[in-house]
Amino acid sequence: MGFPLPDDPEYRAAIADLLGMLALGELAAFSRLAADAEMAPAIEDREAFARLALTEFTHYELLAARVREFGYEPAAVMSPYAEGFAAFHERTRPSTWLEAVVKAFVGDGIAADFAREIAEFVDGDSRSVIHATVAHEERSTVLLDLARRGMAADAHVSGRLALWGRRLHGEAITQAQVVAAQRESLAALLTDQFGGPGLDLARLGELFARLADRHTDRMALLGLTA
Amino acid sequence: MGFPLPDDPEYRAAIADLLGMLALGELAAFSRLAADAEMAPAIEDREAFARLALTEFTHYELLAARVREFGYEPAAVMSPYAEGFAAFHERTRPSTWLEAVVKAFVGDGIAADFAREIAEFVDGDSRSVIHATVAHEERSTVLLDLARRGMAADAHVSGRLALWGRRLHGEAITQAQVVAAQRESLAALLTDQFGGPGLDLARLGELFARLADRHTDRMALLGLTA
Repeated sequence: MGFPLPDDPEYRAAIADLLGMLALGELAAFSRLAADAEMAPAIEDREAFARLALTEFTHYELLAARVREFGYEPAAVMSPYAEGFAAFHERTRPSTWLEAVVKAFVGDGIAADFAREIAEFVDGDSRSVIHATVAHEERSTVLLDLARRGMAADAHVSGRLALWGRRLHGEAITQAQVVAAQRESLAALLTDQFGGPGLDLARLGELFARLADRHTDRMALLGLTA
Repeated sequence: MGFPLPDDPEYRAAIADLLGMLALGELAAFSRLAADAEMAPAIEDREAFARLALTEFTHYELLAARVREFGYEPAAVMSPYAEGFAAFHERTRPSTWLEAVVKAFVGDGIAADFAREIAEFVDGDSRSVIHATVAHEERSTVLLDLARRGMAADAHVSGRLALWGRRLHGEAITQAQVVAAQRESLAALLTDQFGGPGLDLARLGELFARLADRHTDRMALLGLTA
């Protein structure tokens, strides 16, 4: 999908901005997972959840390092996104351990899908960094196991969790759209301003439809209706 | 201070129990620091705080590994302490970033002093592990810097933080005393049941007096009255 290497300063700024968004998302996920770990009914599960948080921090570090390679300070490109992620996590604060597990599986799954989609609009090296932060197979195994065990212990919880999953999807998509609309550099990346593949309204709609499909698949893995 | 190597099963159980208490403390501190990091006004400070949380997790792993060397499952020896630590953190939930910083400096400082004191009552290898989890010089430097910058930005905050420090000390000492009283194996370690140095009421009083002195020193480093 030939598009120029990032020597155009505006293009570089746009990619750094995008990486900053992803980095802030990882740092926020780190804090939330670490805090939600305390809701685990068993110490073993608490440790497993804490380890997921550690992985998010590692991803944060990868993204921050790539931001520095572009000549930007991570904090500077992350700051504009702090409020948005804080608001998302405030609106989706789990009230039970199972809600926390489903949020980690479904919410972070949507975030990873979104990251994979926008990775198509950046240079190859940055794309590799993004892909390294969304390789979540082991994580999915851990979370599916936690979710299934929790649901097996409480057969009546699945209706409420199905609603919870729907709410997480709605909030995540809303946030993605708000961010795309508010951040000019991100919008410039997603459209063809830098000679990249570009994304018109129709293709943007397709992107969100793919995110919804994958969300439905994940809910099905949990045995829940999306 | 010659006392037997831990081949006595009861003695081993008592040490494993003690290590479990410290391990749970580290895991709880990990979650709290990671969550409190979100209160940081600047992303750089947020990252610095998150890194302190990561260090606590590393300490948790050291302690859990030592528990396994004694033939115990970490979760089993940690579980009895989960409620106590949760209650402590619930009662000392910071409401501002500076309260979070002071809690990390003062609260975890008291916990480290307590760990150092009881390390005198365990075998040499376990003592080395405990000492590795309380070597906090770099941490203190980071926290003092965060606290001083925060207080410099708000000259009127020191009175409230002095009260906050006093409350943290009170809650921490209360928790230490409750734990010592409730856990028979810990009481057995601290007294001379296993032929160790032992700790009568007078020496226990001296121990808490030392903790109070070091707390006063830490508060002084912050420029606060204990």
